[in-house]
This record gives sequence, structure tokens and C-alpha cells, in this order.
Amino acid sequence: MATGDGSRPSDTGEDARVSRTRADVARAALEVLTTEGSDAVTHARVAEVAGYSKTTLYTHWPARVDLIAMAIESIGEMPHHDRTGVLRDDLIAELQVFRAGIVEMRLDRVLSAMAEWASEEQMARIRNRVNTDGQRQMYEMLGEIFDGPALDAAVSMLTGVVACPAMMYGNMPDDAVIEAAVDVVLNGHAHSKR
Amino acid sequence: MATGDGSRPSDTGEDARVSRTRADVARAALEVLTTEGSDAVTHARVAEVAGYSKTTLYTHWPARVDLIAMAIESIGEMPHHDRTGVLRDDLIAELQVFRAGIVEMRLDRVLSAMAEWASEEQMARIRNRVNTDGQRQMYEMLGEIFDGPALDAAVSMLTGVVACPAMMYGNMPDDAVIEAAVDVVLNGHAHSKR
Repeated sequence: MATGDGSRPSDTGEDARVSRTRADVARAALEVLTTEGSDAVTHARVAEVAGYSKTTLYTHWPARVDLIAMAIESIGEMPHHDRTGVLRDDLIAELQVFRAGIVEMRLDRVLSAMAEWASEEQMARIRNRVNTDGQRQMYEMLGEIFDGPALDAAVSMLTGVVACPAMMYGNMPDDAVIEAAVDVVLNGHAHSKR
Repeated sequence: MATGDGSRPSDTGEDARVSRTRADVARAALEVLTTEGSDAVTHARVAEVAGYSKTTLYTHWPARVDLIAMAIESIGEMPHHDRTGVLRDDLIAELQVFRAGIVEMRLDRVLSAMAEWASEEQMARIRNRVNTDGQRQMYEMLGEIFDGPALDAAVSMLTGVVACPAMMYGNMPDDAVIEAAVDVVLNGHAHSKR
């Protein structure tokens, strides 16, 4: 096959094969992480799910954390709500999207795995990127009415109204709790003495 | 040695030995969990730190989750602030105690391990107990001014102002952020339409 960039066909074939392996293994590792938990992400289990040999996996991803890091990186962008411009509605909807992400994508297991492995540099970078991406829209929205420490506080508080019940009790907050949280924050801004 | 309850001296000696082993191993497992993370809690590592044989550990605690569960159970009560009765001060101080617990006792690693293993029934029970105990005082204090969904929301939000930066970025909120969060919640109550 002509490549036009001077590489030999076999290089392109090799790259494509490695890419395909990587995609397959990343998908399998993410599936094991989200359905079985981080402790289940082993070379044996991921190889089994992916349909590759353990030897192949160990060659490219020597340590378990390499598999977990690749799995999380393969998630791509965090889901966000398309803003309408009405702040209360948008804050509520963004939290509902986060809640759905935990229910459907098991983002709680992703958060947990990133925290568990954060002493590894590659995971600390991934954790930073994923969480910054995840909170980006909340910062934008709350940044319209808060700044400084109060902005950081408000973002953490609304993140927490979904993340804390999920991580601490395995429960999702219902809509009434999400709405109550948003109203406390909006009321708390409107009447702050600062 | 006379025991007065009909048991033989050798039973009492055996019980004492098992108790001592349990306490030693629990302490070692907790140390490994908090200083090295949950993935490091293996029979080999805990046996090394505790100074017992792996065989002894496998006999009493067959699975890794048994070691982790025992470690967390050995923590006992969660630390709380002694209330002064001034709500704003007490809320701020309780969050500072929680923050200190993460810094000094690595409560973040405990929370993370409980979330990771929550599909195991013994860990789900421990997680419920530890987190309920941990949030008990926050519920009491915020229960003075909130009820229903707003109370659940307020507790999760203030828990989140410490827990989220810790779990998501490995950072502690500073006093300014903690105070801002408490003020948003107190202002948010004072002026809510409900």
C-alpha cells in the first residue's frame, strides 16, 4: 500500500496492529475496571476479556497501573450538559449528567482508581486532567457569580452533593437533593455580605 | 491461672494469643493501607510489617479484603470537634478536624479502600458504619437549620468541600475555602424561600 511519507508498508502495518491492540486492550481494561473494580484489573483478567495473550500485555504494559492508566485515558472527554443559559437549570442539569455518568459509566470507580494510584506520576497527571475536565463547566457556571475561595468552595460543594453519597454509601442523590443543593448555593451567593 | 468461669487456663492463653495476633496484624494492615495504599495490602507485606508468618495470616484472614476490613475496623471512632454551641465556629472546626484526619490518618485512603471493596458485604457494612459515624456530627449541627433534602444536600456539600479536593487532586482546602463554604451554606439557609 502506498503511504506517500517514505515509510515502508510493513511499518504502517505494524503501527496499525499496535494501535488496534492498544484500543482493544484499553477497552477491555476499562470494562474490567468499571464492572469489576480496580483490584480486578490484572494482566490475566484483561488478557482474557480482550482476547490477547498475557505475554502481549506484559510486553506493552508491564505493570497493572499501566493498564489502569490506559483504560482511564481512553475515556476521552467527560460528559457535560449543553448550557441553556439559565444558571439554576444548567447547574441542576450538569449535576444530573454527573450522576448519570456514575450510574452508567461507573465514574465512581474511575475516580476511586485514580485516587488509589495517584502516587504514580502517570496517574497523577491523568487524575488532574480528568478531574479538571470534569469540573470545567461547573467552574465556568459558578464563576459567573463567585470568585476566589468562595468559587472553589462552591465547585467542591456541588461536586460533593453527587460524589460524596456515591463514594461513601453507593447511593445517588435524588433530584430533590440536587435541586436543594443548587438553591442553597445560589441563595448563599445572593445574600453573602462579601 | 484461675479463671473462675470454668474455662481451662490453656483456652484463656489461646484466646489472648489470638487477640494479640489480631491487634498486631490489624495495626500493621492499617499502617500499610494508609502509608502505601490499598494495593500494597498483601499477606506478604502485612506479614512482613507485623512480624508474623504469611501462613498465620492466611489462616485467620484468607483474602486481602479480610485484612483491609480488619484494618479499617480497628480505627474505631472518627475524630470530631468538641462543640462550643456557636454553629458557624463549630461547622468550620468540624471540617478542619476532617481535613486533619486526611492529612494525619490518611482518611482519604480509608475512604478510597472502602469504596473500592464495597461490593464485598463485610466492607459495605464497615463503609456504612464508618461514614455514618464520620458524618454524624455534621448531621446534628446542620439539622438545627435544615431538614429533608436540603439537610442531606448541606451535609454532602460540606463533606465535599474537604473530600473532593482531597480525593480528586490530593490537595487540602485552606481555611479561606472552608470558611467560604460554611458561609454559603449558612447564608443559603437564612434566605431560602422554603
